[in-house]
Amino acid sequence: MRIAQVPPLYEAVPPRLYGGTERVVAHLTDALVDLGHEVTLFASAEAKTKADLVVVRDQAIRLDPAPLKSDLAAHIAMLAEVRRRADEFDVIHFHTDMIHFPLFEDMAEKTLTTLHGRLDLKDLPGVYRRWPQFPLVSISDSQRAPLPFANWAGTVLHGMCAGIYEYHPKSEGYLAFLGRISPEKGPERAIAIAKRMGRRLKIAAKVDAADREYFHTVVEPLLDHPLVEFVGEIGDAEKSAFLGGADALLFPIAWPEPFGLVMIEAMACGTPVIAYQWGSVPEVIEEGVTGFIVDDEDEAVEALRRLPDLSRQAVRERFEIRFSAHAMARRYEDLYARLDEAARPPRLTLAQSA
Amino acid sequence: MRIAQVPPLYEAVPPRLYGGTERVVAHLTDALVDLGHEVTLFASAEAKTKADLVVVRDQAIRLDPAPLKSDLAAHIAMLAEVRRRADEFDVIHFHTDMIHFPLFEDMAEKTLTTLHGRLDLKDLPGVYRRWPQFPLVSISDSQRAPLPFANWAGTVLHGMCAGIYEYHPKSEGYLAFLGRISPEKGPERAIAIAKRMGRRLKIAAKVDAADREYFHTVVEPLLDHPLVEFVGEIGDAEKSAFLGGADALLFPIAWPEPFGLVMIEAMACGTPVIAYQWGSVPEVIEEGVTGFIVDDEDEAVEALRRLPDLSRQAVRERFEIRFSAHAMARRYEDLYARLDEAARPPRLTLAQSA
Repeated sequence: MRIAQVPPLYEAVPPRLYGGTERVVAHLTDALVDLGHEVTLFASAEAKTKADLVVVRDQAIRLDPAPLKSDLAAHIAMLAEVRRRADEFDVIHFHTDMIHFPLFEDMAEKTLTTLHGRLDLKDLPGVYRRWPQFPLVSISDSQRAPLPFANWAGTVLHGMCAGIYEYHPKSEGYLAFLGRISPEKGPERAIAIAKRMGRRLKIAAKVDAADREYFHTVVEPLLDHPLVEFVGEIGDAEKSAFLGGADALLFPIAWPEPFGLVMIEAMACGTPVIAYQWGSVPEVIEEGVTGFIVDDEDEAVEALRRLPDLSRQAVRERFEIRFSAHAMARRYEDLYARLDEAARPPRLTLAQSA
Repeated sequence: MRIAQVPPLYEAVPPRLYGGTERVVAHLTDALVDLGHEVTLFASAEAKTKADLVVVRDQAIRLDPAPLKSDLAAHIAMLAEVRRRADEFDVIHFHTDMIHFPLFEDMAEKTLTTLHGRLDLKDLPGVYRRWPQFPLVSISDSQRAPLPFANWAGTVLHGMCAGIYEYHPKSEGYLAFLGRISPEKGPERAIAIAKRMGRRLKIAAKVDAADREYFHTVVEPLLDHPLVEFVGEIGDAEKSAFLGGADALLFPIAWPEPFGLVMIEAMACGTPVIAYQWGSVPEVIEEGVTGFIVDDEDEAVEALRRLPDLSRQAVRERFEIRFSAHAMARRYEDLYARLDEAARPPRLTLAQSA
């Protein structure tokens, strides 16, 4: 099929450091090319891709040092270019929330829109009610809860290219926390759990400007402890070693996480996940196989005791089956085919036309 | 005429404190009603207007305490509602930058779009080149400089309802600075000018989160001086007294100000303006009548010496002629009529059809 991929323009595709949406689109795009599709990626110039690249901005917005820029104008200009070339594609796959709806109304049936963010925002129901013709994809079933009436075509769990994560058959005796430092990600809970068990904890985390006060008042005072090591922000190159060396990833969230990429990144390294039961967690973690799902600190401590029951090899295997980029691309392929089927005029058989 | 006014949804219409665009739209809307037009205002529920109000959000986005909301979704939903009712209007007047372009392509000829912000942003030329069919209004000629190729229908300088500002025939012996505390507004230059002349300076200003560091490091150390009084943020009710009591408003900007509402608010009170020559300033200030246009501190000091040459009554008169809401509404009326004329099928006379 001829497929267009349209990610947002905030980060490079794939991102240099953080940035979930652009990372998933990068892996999906390459996997679709590997499956034999003709894929076109609309992105900023830094993109690294196996697909045909259409450069729609000289650089990603967040990497661009220009002081005066317009997110909205950049995205609208990109979408106008996609529309100008729409005839070249069988399917146009958007990852841009709802901003493309007004421009693609007359061809909604050949679009697919994956929603990557949380959906419990006040202004969203009005928009998804007004444009019910756009088929939507959720990245977990739980993500859909605030918009049950929307035009859901399917759920496709994220996948990542297996090759960039190294499987670690043996861990090195520490627990890992990886993510933004923010109340919803729960770093202080990870620290409490590690201390109760007397286990080492390594924290690799970015501190956004918005979370700096929380970091200084809540988290920083807890870091001065012999069991806790704060390693700062890490890039893709260091992730495998950091996650693969851990006995387990702690994911003590307290918000409706739409997916949680770091869980599958840990699994790719063979590292099980101990996660709080919120959002996508029960759909991503297979209890007693790839990790444990817990409700509080006591249960997390109990889960840590049961860690030796899990096989790191089984964790990696489950990643490959469920969360490789190939697996994700296969699921999207099914959805694209269904769109294509629905768009084609029905073929009349002799019996029907008689 | 049947006219729709479509301001952004960030602030109330009119705003409770700051917010230029929503304030201008509020005054324009009422003045158009006074001129006998059938006006419909699309806005959040707090709006106070003489027009028919279509409520498109329960409250303005910045006043809304809900932690999870989407600016983009709120605006797109509003625009969809405007489009649903588009047949009810002869002219639809947008104040929403370019976000409505995709939704109103098929009726661009009956829309007018006033651009309220600075236009030297990196991503704008691409958008205004792609949608050349939308007639645009600049709020000063100088504002157009970065987009000379755009489809400019005219320049309409802002106006304000004369009734809400009280004319002060006598001032009270101080200089005034009113605006955001930010490097581009130049509060430190205002302080330097006042100190050189040994004149009292009152500063009424808002400090945004983004400008707090600049305030603490650059401005705050200068405030501890017997000539300088910092009165904080003031509302509409206090503005007349604050501006009307001043010998002059100092407007020592250093950026391409697209308009600068505070200049005409001062004039409405009879207070002349000493402004640095940037952006709209030469179009708003009449040199030697409503104030002085200067290039540096020396010239500002010289202008202060010449202040007694100016007549406060003449300043107020020039405001009424050039910057009342009525004057602004008349200018927009002309532009609406031209749109309407252009949209109507040409009438064939006998001579032409023969």
